[in-house]
Amino acid sequence: MSRDLRPLFAPRSVAVVGASADPSKWGNVLARGALRGSHRRPVYLVNRSGGVILGERTFASLRELPEAPELAVICVPASGFELAAKEALAAGARALVAITSGLGEHDDEGKRVEERVAERVRAAGAVLLGPNCLGVFEAGEALDLGWSELPEGQIALVSQSGNLALELARLAAAAGLGFSRFASLGNQADLVAADFLDELAAHEPTRLIALYLEDFHDGRAFVRAAARATGSGTPVLLLSGGVSGASAQAAVSHTGALVSDTRAVEAACRAGGIVRVTTPRQLVDAAQALLPRRLPRGRRVAVYADGGGHGVIAGDVLAAAGLEVPRLSEATTAALREHLPETASLANPVDFAGGGESGLASYADVGRLLLESPDVDAVLLTGYFGGYAVDTPELGREEIAAARDLAAAAVETNGVLAVHTAYAGSAAAAQLRRGGVPVYADVESAVAALALLAGEAERESPSSAATEIPPTVAPPAPGYAGARAFLADAGVPLSEARSARSSAEAVSGAGEIGYPVALKAADLVHKSDRGGVALDLPDAAALARAFDDVRSRTGSETYSVERMAPVEDGVELIVGVKHDPRFGPIVLVGLGGLYAELLEDVAVALAPIGEEEALRLLTSLRAAPLLDGARGRPLLDTPAAARAVSALSRAAAACPDVREIEVNPLLLLPNGVVGLDARVVLSS
Amino acid sequence: MSRDLRPLFAPRSVAVVGASADPSKWGNVLARGALRGSHRRPVYLVNRSGGVILGERTFASLRELPEAPELAVICVPASGFELAAKEALAAGARALVAITSGLGEHDDEGKRVEERVAERVRAAGAVLLGPNCLGVFEAGEALDLGWSELPEGQIALVSQSGNLALELARLAAAAGLGFSRFASLGNQADLVAADFLDELAAHEPTRLIALYLEDFHDGRAFVRAAARATGSGTPVLLLSGGVSGASAQAAVSHTGALVSDTRAVEAACRAGGIVRVTTPRQLVDAAQALLPRRLPRGRRVAVYADGGGHGVIAGDVLAAAGLEVPRLSEATTAALREHLPETASLANPVDFAGGGESGLASYADVGRLLLESPDVDAVLLTGYFGGYAVDTPELGREEIAAARDLAAAAVETNGVLAVHTAYAGSAAAAQLRRGGVPVYADVESAVAALALLAGEAERESPSSAATEIPPTVAPPAPGYAGARAFLADAGVPLSEARSARSSAEAVSGAGEIGYPVALKAADLVHKSDRGGVALDLPDAAALARAFDDVRSRTGSETYSVERMAPVEDGVELIVGVKHDPRFGPIVLVGLGGLYAELLEDVAVALAPIGEEEALRLLTSLRAAPLLDGARGRPLLDTPAAARAVSALSRAAAACPDVREIEVNPLLLLPNGVVGLDARVVLSS
Repeated sequence: MSRDLRPLFAPRSVAVVGASADPSKWGNVLARGALRGSHRRPVYLVNRSGGVILGERTFASLRELPEAPELAVICVPASGFELAAKEALAAGARALVAITSGLGEHDDEGKRVEERVAERVRAAGAVLLGPNCLGVFEAGEALDLGWSELPEGQIALVSQSGNLALELARLAAAAGLGFSRFASLGNQADLVAADFLDELAAHEPTRLIALYLEDFHDGRAFVRAAARATGSGTPVLLLSGGVSGASAQAAVSHTGALVSDTRAVEAACRAGGIVRVTTPRQLVDAAQALLPRRLPRGRRVAVYADGGGHGVIAGDVLAAAGLEVPRLSEATTAALREHLPETASLANPVDFAGGGESGLASYADVGRLLLESPDVDAVLLTGYFGGYAVDTPELGREEIAAARDLAAAAVETNGVLAVHTAYAGSAAAAQLRRGGVPVYADVESAVAALALLAGEAERESPSSAATEIPPTVAPPAPGYAGARAFLADAGVPLSEARSARSSAEAVSGAGEIGYPVALKAADLVHKSDRGGVALDLPDAAALARAFDDVRSRTGSETYSVERMAPVEDGVELIVGVKHDPRFGPIVLVGLGGLYAELLEDVAVALAPIGEEEALRLLTSLRAAPLLDGARGRPLLDTPAAARAVSALSRAAAACPDVREIEVNPLLLLPNGVVGLDARVVLSS
Repeated sequence: MSRDLRPLFAPRSVAVVGASADPSKWGNVLARGALRGSHRRPVYLVNRSGGVILGERTFASLRELPEAPELAVICVPASGFELAAKEALAAGARALVAITSGLGEHDDEGKRVEERVAERVRAAGAVLLGPNCLGVFEAGEALDLGWSELPEGQIALVSQSGNLALELARLAAAAGLGFSRFASLGNQADLVAADFLDELAAHEPTRLIALYLEDFHDGRAFVRAAARATGSGTPVLLLSGGVSGASAQAAVSHTGALVSDTRAVEAACRAGGIVRVTTPRQLVDAAQALLPRRLPRGRRVAVYADGGGHGVIAGDVLAAAGLEVPRLSEATTAALREHLPETASLANPVDFAGGGESGLASYADVGRLLLESPDVDAVLLTGYFGGYAVDTPELGREEIAAARDLAAAAVETNGVLAVHTAYAGSAAAAQLRRGGVPVYADVESAVAALALLAGEAERESPSSAATEIPPTVAPPAPGYAGARAFLADAGVPLSEARSARSSAEAVSGAGEIGYPVALKAADLVHKSDRGGVALDLPDAAALARAFDDVRSRTGSETYSVERMAPVEDGVELIVGVKHDPRFGPIVLVGLGGLYAELLEDVAVALAPIGEEEALRLLTSLRAAPLLDGARGRPLLDTPAAARAVSALSRAAAACPDVREIEVNPLLLLPNGVVGLDARVVLSS
């Protein structure tokens, strides 16, 4: 259901319910904020005791207003909240902003109040922000309810935490950034984050959407909305909190253990085209980098600095971040030579060697030259620039001119430029920022920005399949045989097998398959840990002996006799799907065996995925060169693995009863794949 | 040779050679700086043209001074440098500080001038700092040659880059830190970094040594000096530049490729007890963390904040950094309840839920309670504290009192506390810093500080063996057999083998060993890549066939017949030593096979190492649980691997001709180890 947010962000009239004359009260802050917009719309202050507040007459009740308040912001005590909301709706409000907290968010009674009010709001065709929120802000509408001193700019911020939004606002202001809109979500009793994304992506002054979320509600709806926003060209940055906590359900399979809450969010971000950050600083750093909307063609970076140390350190940090600092071509160094003193080092990093002092224009000239150079994809200026005027005030004008020209060069060349300066608060730094250049106070942040941009340039657009759940299929029958049948139906190749309940049945099955065979105690979940597996049985006698052994050890009633696979010819993968309570089925691929778990070399995506996306997941593994014939190993049939991964993901996503499902190992061979074990965990 | 640095840091008199009246010239900056100390010592300004500078009479030549200048700082043009240095020594100078640059550092002539002057200085029993340096500073002596505005404090800084030192100084000042001494190394023609470490460790006001180095000179001498400093309780922080560059020599063995320049520095830091950082910001962040000299007992952290979002984010960042955020005990939460409002969340993270406003003293009270709690090893305050006075000025006094009390609580409980605040420039933040509490502007920096301290607490003291090179042994004979003999002599167990030049010799050798055997073309360096290995040969016929095959493929003249090892019973390691041009032999251990290279799960140390250190390296691998019987695997004989690693490291370190040596794989079994291949690369 698409919600109409116009009354929330651009109301024709506003009522402050619980307005107060006491400057230390929220009711006063809100009244002041609302009145700052009184040139744009009528503002009504409501206070039970009446009287005059901030020089304005007040109304004792919403019923007394001369017109319907399109937006009502409510900051009465918890006990009066439900009544105030009811009255606001009765008065004709189309949007409620509920500041009121202490409804007992953590007990049933508080939840019930929230839910009752939200239901009433929806029934009235209105919207409710909060409760327990900090208000709403819209720069272009002079709407400032609850949030003063927010700098105006291009970022729309939707946050579940007030104090974090405060920190983000401070960091953004320090970086020369500001906000087009802000919505404090509070408890999300009615409006949730996903409801805002379409509206914000369509909002012209908004050039970037920033979110702080702990609770995603319908995670798939959120991902679909984010994919629409990013698909239409508006970057979405997500700072998500509380993802490191243990999952509520203990995992049974390896897949279950490996798909942590953090990985589920990672999969959601992959599907939604969302840039995930983990701290407020990272969010603002990334916003600076993304706002110019220029991406590099590759990972090659030119570095320049006045003084060797800064360039050297930047080179190391770039290399550690997976970026390259290539030697510059003869043509480029020859061109640089004209702008720099003889002592300058023209390799990459370019070191002015004190040349800055002899003419600050060279910062712009060298920058432009490097931005234009085919040798590199991005440029990093690092170190002292910004400090000339600080240490030698008479250089101020020249330094600002150089900053202006450098920023212009980045725009004109459509180039990617980041600046680190030890003088991030200088006038030259401010000039660069005004020109759209991201400026950072430390080199690691500038390098992280360039690495982010390189990653964004390489990112494939989110696969639409990832957000579509296929029609429901019946759950697997219980047990190992059921799991195998479910997977085989789905199109996942498995080793040839026969069920057996006795030694004779086992031997007869093996005769059909051909020796050597493996024998498995099918009743056990952790077969190999409990001595339930015998491998490489060369003949009937060995199989019969093994059968007796395994039965005496495990007491299993059913067994599976399986063709031995040529394990030494291939590489073992793990493939599985886990149902995440927020984001639904998540597919995981990884290097199999113990290494997968110890080294956690895995990749995840929202299920289902197509073969192309499955191939991307496989090739994103650190161990991917193992599959590609590295070091004289055979080239393996990775496309077959991708087909199996896609098939597994579709089947698992189509079956809501599947909590965890995995094939581990899935043996990847030069020709094809074969699953050597299967496990399904159904929701209880 | 221990150098006397007293004349450099505490000279009885100073001459500025090349003093200038022009305020834009270094000769003027130096003269001004020197004169600021004229109440402590005579200052002589030397200028060829004579006259009055800064109101002081000048001398036309060093020969005219009324007494020997104990320290002469030289900033004459390059052409006059050698003469000025000669004259300074003749005048009796004991320390020369050579600012002069442009001697042609990068050509032979410049190098020769430097070397000649350095030799002359050493012959005179004096010391030379530079040339091409920025001067020297000693806070306690009012000695400020070339470096103004350096805040006074507890850090001694030795740097090879001027502009980086400038950035460090700015970052330190912003963090409330300062410097006891500063030496700009320049080209290190005479004094090198290692020369400063003993002196600085013994310097009472110096509580921490910070280094920026690109060139280590005698790396082992540097490591020994650092180990003495850190052993005596003075932390040493190293920012090393230029370590990401490709090694000068192309590596032949896997060990050679894996021991990058960065890993060599890592090994040096391990041996010297040095904390390695990669950016100026990290250096200052780490200095803040280390200066209180209090380490946590473990990795458990209590987080508290006013507002949920900050605590939640901190919890995620702590978890990602390998720290724990355990639930607090009933006793602790009961005690917390007395200080916080009912709405507060008393789990960990502790959330005041707006409780801050009702009494800022609770920040100190809660902090003390958590610092005293046996539930945790460190405390992190994150978010808004510091902002109360900014948003509500009347809370200023109360907030500063809370900051003072909180800092006192950390000292009194001998506890580990870090603070992140969005208001890092506030008066409360400054008060915390004055009380010795590290304060950071972003939560990731505060968490990194706590992770650093946890790591320091777990760090074993550097092994003294690591810095002692054993007596020289003869190099291995060339070829595979020579490598095997060298390793066997050293005490590294290898698979039983026989050399063979013909099929008959091979079969005869195999008869002595017993089948199955492996056959290797001994002349090849990359045996398996070129079809030079045949495995699992069950009998003489198979061996003879394989011999013909391998000979026709490789043309090798010598062969090795070896006992097949039970590879499936163990885990393959790689063990090797590479000679690094700066730090000498570096020993490497890692998971063997392709995984080692793809996933780079390796650990390094300066060779030689003892068995205990070898065991520490092995257990530091991410894959270490594989060796320990994880998931039903057999417990492997890791002590035997440690013995082999130690033996290999001793032999390689004792043989300066060894450039690279490795055993790959070293098969680690439930009982013992066996090397399955060996390779030695000698220096050419």
